[in-house]
Amino acid sequence: MDAEFYTKLAAPAQTKIVLLVLDGLGGLPAEPGGKTELETAHTPNLDRLAAQSKLGLSQPAGPGVTVGSGPGHLALFGYDPIHYEIGRGALEALGVDFELGADDLAARGNFCTVDAQGCVTDRRAGRLPTEISRSLAEKLRTIRVPGVTFFVEPVKEHRFAFVARAEGLGDALSESDPLKTGVPTLPVRALNPESERAAAYVNAFIEQARLLLAKDSPANMITLRGFNKLPVLPSFSERYGLHAASIAVNGMYRGVSKLAGMDVVPLCGETIEAEFTTLEKYWQEYDFFYLHVKKTDTCGESGDFMGKAAVIEEVDRQIPRLMALQPDVVIVGGDHSSPAVLRSHSWHPVPTLLYSPYVLPDLIETFGERACARGSLGVFPATHILPLALANARRISKYGA
Amino acid sequence: MDAEFYTKLAAPAQTKIVLLVLDGLGGLPAEPGGKTELETAHTPNLDRLAAQSKLGLSQPAGPGVTVGSGPGHLALFGYDPIHYEIGRGALEALGVDFELGADDLAARGNFCTVDAQGCVTDRRAGRLPTEISRSLAEKLRTIRVPGVTFFVEPVKEHRFAFVARAEGLGDALSESDPLKTGVPTLPVRALNPESERAAAYVNAFIEQARLLLAKDSPANMITLRGFNKLPVLPSFSERYGLHAASIAVNGMYRGVSKLAGMDVVPLCGETIEAEFTTLEKYWQEYDFFYLHVKKTDTCGESGDFMGKAAVIEEVDRQIPRLMALQPDVVIVGGDHSSPAVLRSHSWHPVPTLLYSPYVLPDLIETFGERACARGSLGVFPATHILPLALANARRISKYGA
Repeated sequence: MDAEFYTKLAAPAQTKIVLLVLDGLGGLPAEPGGKTELETAHTPNLDRLAAQSKLGLSQPAGPGVTVGSGPGHLALFGYDPIHYEIGRGALEALGVDFELGADDLAARGNFCTVDAQGCVTDRRAGRLPTEISRSLAEKLRTIRVPGVTFFVEPVKEHRFAFVARAEGLGDALSESDPLKTGVPTLPVRALNPESERAAAYVNAFIEQARLLLAKDSPANMITLRGFNKLPVLPSFSERYGLHAASIAVNGMYRGVSKLAGMDVVPLCGETIEAEFTTLEKYWQEYDFFYLHVKKTDTCGESGDFMGKAAVIEEVDRQIPRLMALQPDVVIVGGDHSSPAVLRSHSWHPVPTLLYSPYVLPDLIETFGERACARGSLGVFPATHILPLALANARRISKYGA
Repeated sequence: MDAEFYTKLAAPAQTKIVLLVLDGLGGLPAEPGGKTELETAHTPNLDRLAAQSKLGLSQPAGPGVTVGSGPGHLALFGYDPIHYEIGRGALEALGVDFELGADDLAARGNFCTVDAQGCVTDRRAGRLPTEISRSLAEKLRTIRVPGVTFFVEPVKEHRFAFVARAEGLGDALSESDPLKTGVPTLPVRALNPESERAAAYVNAFIEQARLLLAKDSPANMITLRGFNKLPVLPSFSERYGLHAASIAVNGMYRGVSKLAGMDVVPLCGETIEAEFTTLEKYWQEYDFFYLHVKKTDTCGESGDFMGKAAVIEEVDRQIPRLMALQPDVVIVGGDHSSPAVLRSHSWHPVPTLLYSPYVLPDLIETFGERACARGSLGVFPATHILPLALANARRISKYGA
């Protein structure tokens, strides 16, 4: 997929495309010979849609590669996820609408609990209520270090976005989160000479934070990880001439879609139903809609097989509302697999459905991993999804005579 | 597909390969849930061949890309159609057997009708009979401009090939065809400094043509488009050691096969039946045969669903004659899809059949889009067709020890 080639062929049209992403959609049977979460779920509406669609299994970043949500989404948005590497820090800041600039070094922050010896006892400070997190962030904003400006933005529960702004900061830094309990947080180290000044600033910030929060049990310390600066991503809209809206509850997904040049529209609520209401509300204003459902992945990662199936059923009940809008192209897929049995993201290719009046249906009557494995899209790179959607939306002009 | 790699492995053999191209073969159902043109056609002979073949869907230039016949054929001939970009002008001139050279700037010409104000009223001058076109071309040949030599070759109906010969002409020129009626023809503009001299020559030609044709209603003006010079294409024969014959009625296809180094053999007639007679006639002389059927595409582009199915049936009736020649390898496919329902070329991958005594048949009993979607070739790049044909013809030697 050479994006420049497609950019040259992009043509305007009055059509509308919906990219419905069920995070971590792909799964595995709970026991040998069984059905996956998606195969278990009762999905009459998705099945009906599948029968009118082409099916396949999408691969975000090559065979055997388990991706995070960032690369998984970049692939769905048509960007080569190996070429465009985006760190979590940048995404976290973008996700809370922070205006990240070229001089900004971002990181993902956690409030955590440490004991008298400074050893971590809870990496998430008991999943601190967001309101408390907010007031602690106010405290952190008072930190001053000469030569640099810090920004702290609460995200959700124990999480916050951290940004250090100064000219010429490097972003090759080790993380302060030890990723386990019973050990102290780590000093941040520069992994190249250009990042030494950044490491000094960040360590100064962490030291002041330790003193400021000392009495704030359980959130008496912070960790920072995923340091990075913003990569330059060609705008999704400019590339393909699409006016694109992003409908997503969680920061990460709001962030990556904003990075791709989509408008992150205000939500009518945080439920799946409310996301579809948001879709209806903005239907006239945009021609590309990215709608993200998080809970499939949350259930997958926590090993909740039936919970994941239930979330899929919840999405299935919204499909008639989506189809009532008469979209020209619908893609239902995921950014990666998250089988409940693995309690984590996985490398399994992701069930994907491509609907449009111009696809030749595969005549397969269900939506599921095995159904998609028989689909004519085969196992295909996730970066192909956007070109196929554009073609079916009549937004790609002919190449050559 | 790295052509150089295959060139290194090419080995001689006494085998014969037939590449049967049904232009615009792929289709779509006329109504939801229906059959495509190919699925509708009664094709007992192609079905019997399919049962002994591998099936798949070929993609000329990547997912979602609709190609013109030029790139579509380059891919079938094993050339990367994105790397080798050929303009229509060069193909048009080649198609009428004009000996295009390195100093030649070619374009596709149309006789058209303009009103008293110079506005185009018919872009094709009522699809002028070819004989009239021929005598008008004679008139245009009298045009003289110092420093350049012009050539005008009638093609068919209102179409002619235009060539300007002079050293160092650029070919970055805008087109004079406004592509709609009710507006004047456009002056040709140089799109870079190197093409300014060419633009001046071409505009001088057009101006003289306007005066010469003023009284020749309905063909009282010309348009020129698709300006380009010949790209350098490595010879198909040299690349693979094949002595190749091209059997095609229309200029475009004669042109592109000649460009690839095939001999465009004289036809026994212009019907599909006559093309197969031509195949029989030259069977002993060549070891690779490209046989092109145009009418599938013509019907697709004009929205004639049943007409397209009938052309496929006409081809089907010739298959026993083809198989009686005992070819070692047969490919039946297309350069792109042209669903009647879309009345145009489309991005849909193209049904393809690969027959040889050495393929492991897919055991699918019909030839059609859905049958090919289940075939073991899957959705595959059209550039893979030639290497697969060569391998099955025992014309590729082992790589490595």
